[in-house]
Amino acid sequence: MERVSLERKVLSENDRIAADLRARFTEHDILCLNLISSPGSGKTSLLERTLDSFDRRERAAVLTGDIQTENDAKRLARSGFPVKQITTGGTCHLDARMIERALLDWRLEDIDLLLIENVGNLVCPSSYDLGEAAKVVVLSVTEGEDKPLKYPSIFFKSELLVLNKIDLLPYVPFDIAVAEENARRVHRDMEIVRVSCQTREGMAEWLSWLDCKRGNSRAAASAS
Amino acid sequence: MERVSLERKVLSENDRIAADLRARFTEHDILCLNLISSPGSGKTSLLERTLDSFDRRERAAVLTGDIQTENDAKRLARSGFPVKQITTGGTCHLDARMIERALLDWRLEDIDLLLIENVGNLVCPSSYDLGEAAKVVVLSVTEGEDKPLKYPSIFFKSELLVLNKIDLLPYVPFDIAVAEENARRVHRDMEIVRVSCQTREGMAEWLSWLDCKRGNSRAAASAS
Repeated sequence: MERVSLERKVLSENDRIAADLRARFTEHDILCLNLISSPGSGKTSLLERTLDSFDRRERAAVLTGDIQTENDAKRLARSGFPVKQITTGGTCHLDARMIERALLDWRLEDIDLLLIENVGNLVCPSSYDLGEAAKVVVLSVTEGEDKPLKYPSIFFKSELLVLNKIDLLPYVPFDIAVAEENARRVHRDMEIVRVSCQTREGMAEWLSWLDCKRGNSRAAASAS
Repeated sequence: MERVSLERKVLSENDRIAADLRARFTEHDILCLNLISSPGSGKTSLLERTLDSFDRRERAAVLTGDIQTENDAKRLARSGFPVKQITTGGTCHLDARMIERALLDWRLEDIDLLLIENVGNLVCPSSYDLGEAAKVVVLSVTEGEDKPLKYPSIFFKSELLVLNKIDLLPYVPFDIAVAEENARRVHRDMEIVRVSCQTREGMAEWLSWLDCKRGNSRAAASAS
């Protein structure tokens, strides 16, 4: 019981900071997305392709979380957009305080789109609100079509499922229709895009979803 | 600080139960292995192939952990060996207490080999001793060769790395030599086997490692 109540305390402190971040993102008209997946599902590759597709005048920025190494920040920084690594040391997820600290020396006025790549973990990150407008879950087709049923929390909480590495479909026993059906058993209205970062198939759909969210975010900010 | 000390308390209680389990496994001459990986790296497929390769008189049993669903237990039970699902509800790892409870209605006298499939998570399970003789980390070649550097704890603590899904090597940007070098940067003496559960390549090496561990385990038990 002691453990449960302490977890609640940690989560409610996280929620307080996340609410403050969300208010600041709205104030500055920033769309913030929180990308979550297993290790190696291709979040970094998806972000690389996304940044590569942007006009250099886009005001996009990335925070990328890992337990160790700055590998992902180095890969993403090649795009020329502002990128910062958050190294958690051993913690299995990002929390709102880490985001708050990472943003300290960035001017929010200069950002329109903030992409957060969470630590590779399909479980723990789902409990930590980072102030994002939406969570996006990435699942690669090499991981098996039952993952939405096995890890329902993150599929329930995510607005979009990116089914990644579809170029590998001919080589793996993965029924994409069953995977999508499983995702919608957990989250009926879940939006889904099928993507390959290798062949770029589906990138247009992902970028169009992103554009649509950015439009919605601007509309919400101007209405508030 | 409160959080850290509570975590220590939880872990030291876990260690106490794990030590008790380890003593019972030694007493009954049981080799217990704890398999850990990301979601979808192929732990269940590896166990399916392993059980399929066994003589029916083998005294093997499996405990398989997941947050939700009994899918893995159903898959593995087809082998005819005793299999039990541990559904954690939301917890991101197995702990020693869950193992202790799951074993309550099994006679340890009837088991020689206990294979534990942990929850799919490369982070949290590494902190929880389950009384196993060795941890085995499974990494599939679709996940990227930098994972040992990003998730060093589990690679440091595992005796064996199973590099799985090598049949997919022609289709993914994965340098297997770099992956192995990275694993050995974290854990110098790590043993490594390359496996495909689809083509069965490397299964003989994995089974031979297992045989060798079983021999060692029997020798240790008879010496104690």
